Amino acid sequence: MLGHGFMGGAHSRALAALRWLEDDPAATPRLVSICGRDRTSVERARRRWGWESVELDWQRQATDDRVTLFDNAGPNALHLGPTLAAIAAGKHVLCEKPLGRTAREARTLRDAARDAGIVHMCGFNLRFLPAVRLARELVDAGAVGEPTHFRARFLASSALSPDQRRTWRFHRRGAGSGAVADLGSHIVDLARYLAGEPVAVSAVAKTFVATRDDRPVDVDDAFAAVVEFGNGAVGTLEASRAAGRRAGECAFDLDGTLGSLSFDVERLNALDLIQASKERRRIEVTAPEHPFMQLWWPAPGHPIGWGDSFVHELRHLLSAIATPSAVAPHGADFEDGYRAALVCDAILEAAHTRRRVEVAPS
Amino acid sequence: MLGHGFMGGAHSRALAALRWLEDDPAATPRLVSICGRDRTSVERARRRWGWESVELDWQRQATDDRVTLFDNAGPNALHLGPTLAAIAAGKHVLCEKPLGRTAREARTLRDAARDAGIVHMCGFNLRFLPAVRLARELVDAGAVGEPTHFRARFLASSALSPDQRRTWRFHRRGAGSGAVADLGSHIVDLARYLAGEPVAVSAVAKTFVATRDDRPVDVDDAFAAVVEFGNGAVGTLEASRAAGRRAGECAFDLDGTLGSLSFDVERLNALDLIQASKERRRIEVTAPEHPFMQLWWPAPGHPIGWGDSFVHELRHLLSAIATPSAVAPHGADFEDGYRAALVCDAILEAAHTRRRVEVAPS
Amino acid sequence: MLGHGFMGGAHSRALAALRWLEDDPAATPRLVSICGRDRTSVERARRRWGWESVELDWQRQATDDRVTLFDNAGPNALHLGPTLAAIAAGKHVLCEKPLGRTAREARTLRDAARDAGIVHMCGFNLRFLPAVRLARELVDAGAVGEPTHFRARFLASSALSPDQRRTWRFHRRGAGSGAVADLGSHIVDLARYLAGEPVAVSAVAKTFVATRDDRPVDVDDAFAAVVEFGNGAVGTLEASRAAGRRAGECAFDLDGTLGSLSFDVERLNALDLIQASKERRRIEVTAPEHPFMQLWWPAPGHPIGWGDSFVHELRHLLSAIATPSAVAPHGADFEDGYRAALVCDAILEAAHTRRRVEVAPS
Amino acid sequence: MLGHGFMGGAHSRALAALRWLEDDPAATPRLVSICGRDRTSVERARRRWGWESVELDWQRQATDDRVTLFDNAGPNALHLGPTLAAIAAGKHVLCEKPLGRTAREARTLRDAARDAGIVHMCGFNLRFLPAVRLARELVDAGAVGEPTHFRARFLASSALSPDQRRTWRFHRRGAGSGAVADLGSHIVDLARYLAGEPVAVSAVAKTFVATRDDRPVDVDDAFAAVVEFGNGAVGTLEASRAAGRRAGECAFDLDGTLGSLSFDVERLNALDLIQASKERRRIEVTAPEHPFMQLWWPAPGHPIGWGDSFVHELRHLLSAIATPSAVAPHGADFEDGYRAALVCDAILEAAHTRRRVEVAPS
Repeated sequence: MLGHGFMGGAHSRALAALRWLEDDPAATPRLVSICGRDRTSVERARRRWGWESVELDWQRQATDDRVTLFDNAGPNALHLGPTLAAIAAGKHVLCEKPLGRTAREARTLRDAARDAGIVHMCGFNLRFLPAVRLARELVDAGAVGEPTHFRARFLASSALSPDQRRTWRFHRRGAGSGAVADLGSHIVDLARYLAGEPVAVSAVAKTFVATRDDRPVDVDDAFAAVVEFGNGAVGTLEASRAAGRRAGECAFDLDGTLGSLSFDVERLNALDLIQASKERRRIEVTAPEHPFMQLWWPAPGHPIGWGDSFVHELRHLLSAIATPSAVAPHGADFEDGYRAALVCDAILEAAHTRRRVEVAPS
Repeated sequence: MLGHGFMGGAHSRALAALRWLEDDPAATPRLVSICGRDRTSVERARRRWGWESVELDWQRQATDDRVTLFDNAGPNALHLGPTLAAIAAGKHVLCEKPLGRTAREARTLRDAARDAGIVHMCGFNLRFLPAVRLARELVDAGAVGEPTHFRARFLASSALSPDQRRTWRFHRRGAGSGAVADLGSHIVDLARYLAGEPVAVSAVAKTFVATRDDRPVDVDDAFAAVVEFGNGAVGTLEASRAAGRRAGECAFDLDGTLGSLSFDVERLNALDLIQASKERRRIEVTAPEHPFMQLWWPAPGHPIGWGDSFVHELRHLLSAIATPSAVAPHGADFEDGYRAALVCDAILEAAHTRRRVEVAPS
Repeated sequence: MLGHGFMGGAHSRALAALRWLEDDPAATPRLVSICGRDRTSVERARRRWGWESVELDWQRQATDDRVTLFDNAGPNALHLGPTLAAIAAGKHVLCEKPLGRTAREARTLRDAARDAGIVHMCGFNLRFLPAVRLARELVDAGAVGEPTHFRARFLASSALSPDQRRTWRFHRRGAGSGAVADLGSHIVDLARYLAGEPVAVSAVAKTFVATRDDRPVDVDDAFAAVVEFGNGAVGTLEASRAAGRRAGECAFDLDGTLGSLSFDVERLNALDLIQASKERRRIEVTAPEHPFMQLWWPAPGHPIGWGDSFVHELRHLLSAIATPSAVAPHGADFEDGYRAALVCDAILEAAHTRRRVEVAPS
Repeated sequence: MLGHGFMGGAHSRALAALRWLEDDPAATPRLVSICGRDRTSVERARRRWGWESVELDWQRQATDDRVTLFDNAGPNALHLGPTLAAIAAGKHVLCEKPLGRTAREARTLRDAARDAGIVHMCGFNLRFLPAVRLARELVDAGAVGEPTHFRARFLASSALSPDQRRTWRFHRRGAGSGAVADLGSHIVDLARYLAGEPVAVSAVAKTFVATRDDRPVDVDDAFAAVVEFGNGAVGTLEASRAAGRRAGECAFDLDGTLGSLSFDVERLNALDLIQASKERRRIEVTAPEHPFMQLWWPAPGHPIGWGDSFVHELRHLLSAIATPSAVAPHGADFEDGYRAALVCDAILEAAHTRRRVEVAPS
């Protein structure tokens, strides 16, 4: 694994937790090495999370013979190079979202992964919340009919203070974009997973604090977009890290010709389904009778948390490697990562040019 | 009063209810006449709602000497002519939303009302839900700081069935537009009341059922818009009568540099205020300690309903006539009706031309 | 009508609102007289609420030839005498809850009403919230099976301050009891309406502030009771006017062998039904497709408020008088008022004697 | 560890997860052995959860020199013997709730643990939900003033079906009692943790299905109790495994002279605080600014699940062993386990004798 920050911890914990889902310990992953720049920090992460060795050079890690799966939980600027190197060495790869800082980077990764024939996954962990998976199953089963609307928002307020430092998340070279890459990519992926392929966007983006640490902020703090889907549905996507005092509010609605679905992270274990006017069914997804719940830890019937989504994600990936089987449609592969990046780039271009922009895959 | 449908009933009831708010019955309005085309229906409405006489000719009603206030609760196509006639006769006027089928109609009414010096109000009753009023008071008091985001949605599903008849709400001549005029104008007004003046919009609109009764539907069933405000805030507005099985879901969020507000009609008597990360204060607006609650019926402390908003609205108008005092800022006057219409027209033009459109008052 | 306080206003407004539900104004009630002790206050109430005349002597009002229905909205101590007088004069009667200060008083009224053959109603207005009525319809239709549990709470905090004055609600002569009579009688009636007849109770009661205005408080501020029903269900009832800072929280749950129901006044227009584990259906009772919703004002589809329950209640009563038909089972008659009083007395006795008390009707 | 069912898994996972909270892996526990009767099942649990060895004889495990902490996650009937043996061998002990099948068993364990001077904990994991801990911190800080009311309910429906088998949870020898021991002990502990010491109870208990597998069910399926606290507060406690179709609904309210608190497991990450009438503050407990949140995994700011409570619980225990420091007041020790058992026994006796029963510690 590359990276030892928040995502490094989330992935490490999930990898270890996988043993509870397997009867055969041989089937659980060996944690070969963790990689970062600062030896002291990486060593602390190694000890805490149980990795066997420390690595300071991602090039060496990516080509290490002991490594089967390269898990890139590093910052956005390190998604392209190390992941490419690992693919070139024939490793399976998991790369955190966004797949690239730009759609061009994402396409390079998609192409390389496809050509190499390895198993590839992009870390859109929201797909692995049971309520989101149930939403997709209901859509597939026709519960909402033909989509007419999709709306999603992901709202935080971490960037409202001018005193917030100019970390890599606040410049284009480090992050690609701001709220678009960090929060927006998540809801773009949900839109694609649940409502269909976006074909055009109109958007506005804002940077509310223009300089930090006396240097310019050249990425967005927030965006709002109108989306047209290939199937005729329309919708809105909105993400912000300048939304009052909201702290990670993430919610979506899907409407169709036969019904509606609503989800809010604040109620992580529930999905709302409306199939009759004035009647909202709240489905607690912890019910053991849902087939795909039988896989998840902890015991069916009890609420799970955000962290559990990573356990489900890693299990899905390892199972795709072992079987072998496709990561898609329930996991996001590099094709999904690329297509999400295309929509993100279209949003940024629409905001910049103040024009409607068509999403053009290539 | 002109009109005897849903709005006619809502206004009639509110007018009668006003007597509970006054010690002096002389201060309560006399219900002179109710006007419509079909004598039998109007006569039934007259009896039921307590009007003194039936009128079949709005021209005569608008110039009736006994009439002080002309209450136009008729369909959109009858907003312009009868209201103009009443203004010309020196009556005070209340006109249901949207003020006109187009911004041009609305401007004509705004100009006439302004020049005549009469008291004029546009029926945006959502402003008279106590929670909405409290939101504005909190904004004025600086509780959320400078606005950064406003988002609102008004979602219904009445137009999803192809069997729904082609009433006047489904053609331009009758309604001006579809979801934009009917639902969108409400949330455009909320945006203006709470977040500031919109200066540009990008939008998409959809007509999901193209023909009804074998005739074309030339208005929108739904729209989604990105809005830029003059103060730098950005937001989304979305209204639909094709939203799955939703039945009148109406909600908004306002975010600013110091805090956030959220309201949902499903919780008509509450407003959520977030001034610290991870802490949401739900304020029940029925509390008697809120000064402006002391006006409302029924007794402070008990939940009110949608219908009570009209009581508050009519009382505000009659008080403005009696005092006299300005309808704005807490009531919407014809200037507000006109400016909302400008934004609605900009949304329709943006959707039609697929371009960003600036809102240009004149 | 006797009384011109909160309940006087609620009933007056409801009586006037009835005209919106009738095509024939002749069918709507004439408001003959309003009665109270203080001429100035009663005169103000008369003007405001539209009564024809003022009456200072309830004895005369109760026997007034113009009066068909005697509406007793006065304080608890005036429930017995004036209502008995009206019954003796052959009037139909509506008496606010609790029917008597004691079960003995309630029985006297029940017996007199029954013997006189007049139409009698006890003002348990919660039965006329559409969600509560829907709950009963669902129970009757077998939606929850055989009841196993009923729990209800009615929580306020009006009596926590020692500075609260010693009004008639704080002594036995004026009120009969405290939280038991004022709030508890409501949820006892809901228990009977929805779950069945209580046969035994164990309880505790508390008076948190022992003296007010230097005089003793000889009624309870709060009680909690365990209830056994004749059908084998068990439950809890709890009411308080010393519950922290809660302001009128009122909620109940009913569980049965096949499902569960939940209601909370905070969501006045919704009822929750659970018929499958992990799936909660929230039914918005404003849906026009519910047969009994077609009666209510305002227009189906829009949220109603607390005050509307009185409109429904008065309409039900007037309809029972006109048809004629039984007030029960959906309205509470004096038999219901008496039986609720029996349970209230049993709760008080159980709390006083610290023993389980059987509810013994006579 | 003794036991390899649901609780065995929950504890095992938590023990392994502890390494993420420690910089020093030497500080994380070694998982010596897991014990059960059926070798095949235990061996599978051992592999899956990472224990070093399998043990079939709890006597040997309890006296194993390698064991420092004996974790008893076995069924109720195995709480007394094995835990006593471990104490006798000088081990620290964690025993699942209820501490004993009866207060007598619990007292024996309390006395032995106290006399042996070892660290002892009873597994009331609800105390380790951050919202519950925050509730206690707020109480200690005076946020609700003097308690006036406490009410709690824990509602399931697992026992409504007559086809449910007669496992050990359905007879006294196996479980001590039914809903009282399984669900009731949790809310009794919450009552003690948050509101104070119960001094008397009145109660009713029910067994809705009298025989299973053609043998009698001699424990309760449900109970409801009125509780009097030593500090003058009163309240209700209710637990059921026959509550319609509810699936683990667990909620409590605390009211005091200055405010109110409410918690519902359905919103695991939030606590409601009411300090002003009509204003409810929902505190998301994932906020990093709460000092005690800095301990919890996963990263502050993201929702946690039920399973995380065990991580917090085990960490608290291991820290008490290492420091050494007291398990109480934030963890439950055997004194707490015993006192909860006293209240449970009083509830059962009150239900059986139909009398108010005083809680008499010894």
